[in-house]
Amino acid sequence: MDLALSTTLHTTFDDAIERTRTALADQGFGILTDIDMRATLKAKLGHDMEDYRILGACNPPLAHRAVDINRQIGLLLPCNVVVRRDPTDPDTIIVEAMNPQLMVQVTDQPALNPVADDAAARLRATLAALDSTRT
Amino acid sequence: MDLALSTTLHTTFDDAIERTRTALADQGFGILTDIDMRATLKAKLGHDMEDYRILGACNPPLAHRAVDINRQIGLLLPCNVVVRRDPTDPDTIIVEAMNPQLMVQVTDQPALNPVADDAAARLRATLAALDSTRT
Repeated sequence: MDLALSTTLHTTFDDAIERTRTALADQGFGILTDIDMRATLKAKLGHDMEDYRILGACNPPLAHRAVDINRQIGLLLPCNVVVRRDPTDPDTIIVEAMNPQLMVQVTDQPALNPVADDAAARLRATLAALDSTRT
Repeated sequence: MDLALSTTLHTTFDDAIERTRTALADQGFGILTDIDMRATLKAKLGHDMEDYRILGACNPPLAHRAVDINRQIGLLLPCNVVVRRDPTDPDTIIVEAMNPQLMVQVTDQPALNPVADDAAARLRATLAALDSTRT
């Protein structure tokens, strides 16, 4: 199983962030958290790295269904969507979402399958929408 | 493999949150995010559930080591620590941290083992400190 569902964009980093936020919203995902990993590691360790943001995306009806099945599932919520610059090709922005099937794999709880399938379909649609606006 | 490292407390919910934050800080974890799942599901869906918070804990040196080994690992960062009221026993607060060994399991990347071991040791120390202050 792949850890990520992903696509790539050729645009500015800020534009990639905005497009990702809009495409997630169109699929019912709100952004609950936004971590700037680059700024965090620079501030805390003086370490330089490429642009790297972690957006925490939450679709409330799906989150509700997931916690109703397994109260521990908050350990894997919200669904992280990482937007980062390709370290080997600075003109490319990578957008990758946590594969929701991970929830099923790590809990070994098939009842989570329909929720994971629904989430995965919405995340694939999000990434496809980014592809269609690719410059 | 257990999904969570966990303990239980018998105190108020707010006190459990504060103790957890302090114990995490003592182990080098900053709290980058704090999601009130109960408030989110109430606001978005009108759904009532027990107290349920998701703290996003990050130990910068460990995060740095992890992303240096696998650039996709941000999909599993920060390390979630869920503080929630036991739905079957409202006087009990459950504190559970994502088991860092999950990073190794889902990536199948043994190089992450030392990082996961270090993170797990710090999270176990966090939970043990909560135990020792248990009322």
